[in-house]
Amino acid sequence: MKVKIRTPSRTNPSQDGQPSTFVTIPLVSISFQIEKIRGRARLGRLITPYAEIETPVFMPVGTVASVKGIPQEMLEELGAQVILGNTYHLYLRPGVEIVRRMGGLHRFMSWPRAILTDSGGFQVFSLNHLRKVTEDGVTFRSHLDGSAHFFSPENSMAAQIGLGADIIMAFDECTEYPADRERMRASMEMTARWAARSKIYFEEHKSEVPWNQLPIPSSQLPVAGSEYRVTTTEYQGSRAGTFGRSGETERAGAGNWQPGTGNCGTQALFGIIQGGMDRKLRKESAERTIEIGFPGYAIGGLSVGEPRQLTREIVESTLEHLPADKPRYLMGVGTPEEIVEYANLGVDMMDCVLPTRAARHGLLFTSEGRISIKQARYAQDAGPLDPNCQCRVCQRYSRAYLRHLYASNELLAQVLNTIHNLSFYLDTMRRVRHSIQLGESS
Amino acid sequence: MKVKIRTPSRTNPSQDGQPSTFVTIPLVSISFQIEKIRGRARLGRLITPYAEIETPVFMPVGTVASVKGIPQEMLEELGAQVILGNTYHLYLRPGVEIVRRMGGLHRFMSWPRAILTDSGGFQVFSLNHLRKVTEDGVTFRSHLDGSAHFFSPENSMAAQIGLGADIIMAFDECTEYPADRERMRASMEMTARWAARSKIYFEEHKSEVPWNQLPIPSSQLPVAGSEYRVTTTEYQGSRAGTFGRSGETERAGAGNWQPGTGNCGTQALFGIIQGGMDRKLRKESAERTIEIGFPGYAIGGLSVGEPRQLTREIVESTLEHLPADKPRYLMGVGTPEEIVEYANLGVDMMDCVLPTRAARHGLLFTSEGRISIKQARYAQDAGPLDPNCQCRVCQRYSRAYLRHLYASNELLAQVLNTIHNLSFYLDTMRRVRHSIQLGESS
Repeated sequence: MKVKIRTPSRTNPSQDGQPSTFVTIPLVSISFQIEKIRGRARLGRLITPYAEIETPVFMPVGTVASVKGIPQEMLEELGAQVILGNTYHLYLRPGVEIVRRMGGLHRFMSWPRAILTDSGGFQVFSLNHLRKVTEDGVTFRSHLDGSAHFFSPENSMAAQIGLGADIIMAFDECTEYPADRERMRASMEMTARWAARSKIYFEEHKSEVPWNQLPIPSSQLPVAGSEYRVTTTEYQGSRAGTFGRSGETERAGAGNWQPGTGNCGTQALFGIIQGGMDRKLRKESAERTIEIGFPGYAIGGLSVGEPRQLTREIVESTLEHLPADKPRYLMGVGTPEEIVEYANLGVDMMDCVLPTRAARHGLLFTSEGRISIKQARYAQDAGPLDPNCQCRVCQRYSRAYLRHLYASNELLAQVLNTIHNLSFYLDTMRRVRHSIQLGESS
Repeated sequence: MKVKIRTPSRTNPSQDGQPSTFVTIPLVSISFQIEKIRGRARLGRLITPYAEIETPVFMPVGTVASVKGIPQEMLEELGAQVILGNTYHLYLRPGVEIVRRMGGLHRFMSWPRAILTDSGGFQVFSLNHLRKVTEDGVTFRSHLDGSAHFFSPENSMAAQIGLGADIIMAFDECTEYPADRERMRASMEMTARWAARSKIYFEEHKSEVPWNQLPIPSSQLPVAGSEYRVTTTEYQGSRAGTFGRSGETERAGAGNWQPGTGNCGTQALFGIIQGGMDRKLRKESAERTIEIGFPGYAIGGLSVGEPRQLTREIVESTLEHLPADKPRYLMGVGTPEEIVEYANLGVDMMDCVLPTRAARHGLLFTSEGRISIKQARYAQDAGPLDPNCQCRVCQRYSRAYLRHLYASNELLAQVLNTIHNLSFYLDTMRRVRHSIQLGESS
């Protein structure tokens, strides 16, 4: 990864008397290496400013900077490499400006690994029935308080730069299902025009990402022109020194947690393929998006009510038109069986609310099938939820206890169920990677 | 601790072909040693079937076999030595019979340390305005579904034996506040009669505790007549072999967790002092309860709406009448300042919903005072909740993040807030013990 270094902009003495140099280092965004191919499946390594991600990867959804009920240290333990934040929700609460002032999402939520934010387009589509779409952007009302807001490619980019995830998404229009061909074409074409506007805004403003504003100790500065990556253990910069309200700027940050390598590099902007359920429009969308040029490509507009077989067909045909050397992200899917299937078709990244949302409703995924833990049949079942699972829930608690917690509406039910379901999804993807590595079919 | 051993009742081959002997071992209930005294404060060691508890101790409340939102392994990490379960709630949900069949509360909730259950009397008093009290017991309606139920000293004991906590409580009447002297006397006298009935029933049925029904491998059996305690690491008996529904009795228990020393010893029944806000009635209640004879004594009927100064006066005067060599448990108090104060008056055990309930409402206890985390002033506060706290929340997360989680009604707010408040309470009591040990005033 080639890295360009700006000359240090100013020099400040640090608290221990050693000179500390503040610099802004705009670097390349991500790199992606494919290490092994089996059939259409790819084993890869995606390097972002904050993390090295083994792909295919499943990304748990952390809507408002929290995977519901799960402390970040537990997500680390589960092996989550990258989590997803929803720009729409974060924009409404706590607001982009607060996150930006706190140094970006990684610092704000104390998450040292990678983050991806969506563009907000999907939530505007799914949560707002009164939205008004024009060439300029989308006017919508907050689902929280009904207040009016406006998203365009430009202010979706501004929001996502302020939030400071590793990977951000072009602002797209998610085409509704069903839709006629004319509507699908018009929507796809608007997404293409919005993708171009997203890229233009991003290129002009990407240096404004909040982690590029933070100091790096001079002892850790790279030699100009050389290849350089700051690792998590190398970086020991102060966490809370440069933000917070007046009178609190000198206060030490919370505890010993240190951010990752976010002071190096810029965000990566991915394009999104739309085109509804029409293969030719999908092909055209892919070609037009690739022509604009992005370091990664997502397939959007699926899992919107269409039959699963159709989802699969569109995924499969769209993948044929995506460049082999760039990461491919399938948005918003799916069941455990589906994420294995899509990985085998050549998808590198996936996210879905299913494991976390289902957990909160007592639906648990296991190696022996799905379990609805509310059922009375588990009331005296002393066995583990999944005898083949090594997660802390299956290692310690019985089905009877989990059933009791759920039936009693206890908070702990949601916590433990979510831990297990995430563990099941992350393990499933780990096995997919392992079988690609070994050349086996999974 | 002297232990009587019954001769083995039968011998069964275990699965690995080694003979495994099933026995019932009724042992002494608890022992209590006072190791140091400073002023009226006592540093002690309370040994129960499942744990060795350093006193003074604070007991987190785990109403229906869960401290709300907190996995048991996190309670262990926080240093909780003993937790409290509410018989009223557990009786209604999941029901005593289910817990009994699952081997008792320790196994049911996978908690290897000590548990105390209350008698149900306080919840019947506080949650049921339609209750009907007679000499025989209390008829009440479930707060869940309005169904009619009846608690008496005998069936409170039966319920608490079935739940199988280390320490259980006599069935008492919690006198309302305010009450006139006649009412306070009548209520205190009924509590004394109910205490006698509680003890009679307990002595006749204490061998029915579920953990006495479980097999102990013959290799770990004590030599008859010798002193014996099974330690957690010694005991490796199967966890799930003897209960569960047909067809599942051979199934392995959940994971690797092993119960503690619960297969040894019986429960301990504590008496409860009542008498309202009248010192003479409290003295008489203490004398009558001591005459019946219990291995520990609780002060009940406080924190029911009276002024805090009155609480303190009643606690102080009642403690004078309790035997010095038995553990003293003050029920349902209090703030961090109060638990220190009561420990210094000579109280050995306390419980309170305040740290957990306040946490769920965003009220946090810190070394710098109370914080209502919902306040906008914390929205950009990058500092830790409590700079002097070593808990995982203060070590990792900022006030700004905790404020955002609370304002967004995120599950994680309740989890993290509860971890911190429990940590603060348990640390407070740890400091009290330390200062008694060092002979300092705390």
